[in-house]
Amino acid sequence: MSMPQRIEVSEVGPRDGLQIEAGFIPTEQKLRLIDALSATGLPRIEVTAFVHPKVVPQMADAEAVLAAIGRRPGVRYGAFVPNAKGAERAIAAGVDDLKAGMAASDSFNELNTKMTTEQGMRAIAEIGQAVRGSGRQLVGVVATAFGCPYEGPVALDRVLALFGQLVELEAPLIYLADTTGMADPIGIQTLVSQLQARWPAQRIGLHLHNTRGLGLANALAGLQVGVADFESSVGGLGGCPFAPRAVGNICSEDFVHMLHAMGLATGIDLDALIGAARLAQEVVGRTLPGMVMKAGKASELHPKGVKAIKLD
Amino acid sequence: MSMPQRIEVSEVGPRDGLQIEAGFIPTEQKLRLIDALSATGLPRIEVTAFVHPKVVPQMADAEAVLAAIGRRPGVRYGAFVPNAKGAERAIAAGVDDLKAGMAASDSFNELNTKMTTEQGMRAIAEIGQAVRGSGRQLVGVVATAFGCPYEGPVALDRVLALFGQLVELEAPLIYLADTTGMADPIGIQTLVSQLQARWPAQRIGLHLHNTRGLGLANALAGLQVGVADFESSVGGLGGCPFAPRAVGNICSEDFVHMLHAMGLATGIDLDALIGAARLAQEVVGRTLPGMVMKAGKASELHPKGVKAIKLD
Repeated sequence: MSMPQRIEVSEVGPRDGLQIEAGFIPTEQKLRLIDALSATGLPRIEVTAFVHPKVVPQMADAEAVLAAIGRRPGVRYGAFVPNAKGAERAIAAGVDDLKAGMAASDSFNELNTKMTTEQGMRAIAEIGQAVRGSGRQLVGVVATAFGCPYEGPVALDRVLALFGQLVELEAPLIYLADTTGMADPIGIQTLVSQLQARWPAQRIGLHLHNTRGLGLANALAGLQVGVADFESSVGGLGGCPFAPRAVGNICSEDFVHMLHAMGLATGIDLDALIGAARLAQEVVGRTLPGMVMKAGKASELHPKGVKAIKLD
Repeated sequence: MSMPQRIEVSEVGPRDGLQIEAGFIPTEQKLRLIDALSATGLPRIEVTAFVHPKVVPQMADAEAVLAAIGRRPGVRYGAFVPNAKGAERAIAAGVDDLKAGMAASDSFNELNTKMTTEQGMRAIAEIGQAVRGSGRQLVGVVATAFGCPYEGPVALDRVLALFGQLVELEAPLIYLADTTGMADPIGIQTLVSQLQARWPAQRIGLHLHNTRGLGLANALAGLQVGVADFESSVGGLGGCPFAPRAVGNICSEDFVHMLHAMGLATGIDLDALIGAARLAQEVVGRTLPGMVMKAGKASELHPKGVKAIKLD
């Protein structure tokens, strides 16, 4: 296996994870979590979204969060923005990375953003314009790239068209999002390879969900075709709005544990990240899906006094 | 990716899954589960263990289980046996596949079987002798092949020695077990490739645990080096005795869902297997780790009435 030796793991828990929480998480709790994440060595943290508070009430405190986080040198702080107004707010608030994108599925766009895909792409072009010359970066995302929960498989042409528009807007990094966990390893490698062939200089990332248990297998498939940028969520914060008991994003500390086990560098202190995952459980007041924080790292040995009934 | 196109998924839930349950599961409940599994198209089901009832009280009804299951033509019924006495009981009870093995770690063997590795290997040789001429098959297993929870990494020489002894006993299929979920994809490919190079004609299987979330990524790594035999547990039945909240074996229906998504054939009716996973939850009286039974298959679309807050 020839894989990139240095992986950029971007944390999205405070935004993509918390956005689905029913009760409002107090701003100071969000800050505790973000500050703990800042201390782990993560290169990028998506901390909030500049969306209308009626659409995502959980993100109503976007400005307050940005104003109060303890910024660490070397960490880029990001936010999701749906339109030019969101971009202006984000830039004014001091966001480093503006995340913007659309789904490759019309049904998904119309239900989630109340915009047609065309309207959405015009909004993204305006975001691109706002970012240009601001010293900030546009981070693109093509959502439902591996399937739409309403429509099923998405046409390759649609993914190529949206991805191409984000390339034209000079987004230095563009994520393919498996929004509801419909991807499989072969689908990952096929799509990434097609985009790499068409845009060999473009940095392509993967935003993966573990809805059906395939998250880390899909990440492995991405690594094997050279993907070095991944988004994940601490503790596995988040969920699937279509299936209340299903899980959401791949779990940051489980993913970093896998990367380190394979000898790949992340610059992240795994123990500190596990600590942040435990804090995330405190913040949302329940057990999260993350597994390494429950089982311990593979390198943690057990005292011989602990006998187990385990035949194989 | 060049992968085997036909995968043999062997179910171990009724044995490796249930053995860890604290309360005794009534025999008739075990039979309901095994009979449901028999109807899914699974080629092999490990239904019990012929061990001393003081060691594993949950398996005290081994003979009663074997006597009452509804055998389906084409399904092989297996049982774990620790010694010659267990093998004789299993053969008398009509078991098709006798599973026997040792751990590659002395500490693990002494704590779990109260035998040294040498004593254990003599016991396995006796099992091999009992199987010979009986019309049954010996299925081998090298436990803790990817790491021991007490000792850490295991020496390659130890794995090779145990594996070689099982080859000499003419076990047609030998599993490498990641007993407590310590493996990673590179470790899987490295060890399997070394064994394939040494014993090119030997059928090598993987018995994987998902303790740290790596189960399906490790399975993918195995598929990529040609492994076509895997053991898994319906619903993700089982657990880790070292970490009460951690999970056990990889989940059968999640694994089959992944295989089918990649276009690999199993001969298994996934819907029937998901039904068996729901039954497994009933049998143990709690929610199990299986994810597809909660989120639905990736191919199951959602009505457009179900709006979701999902930006990516």
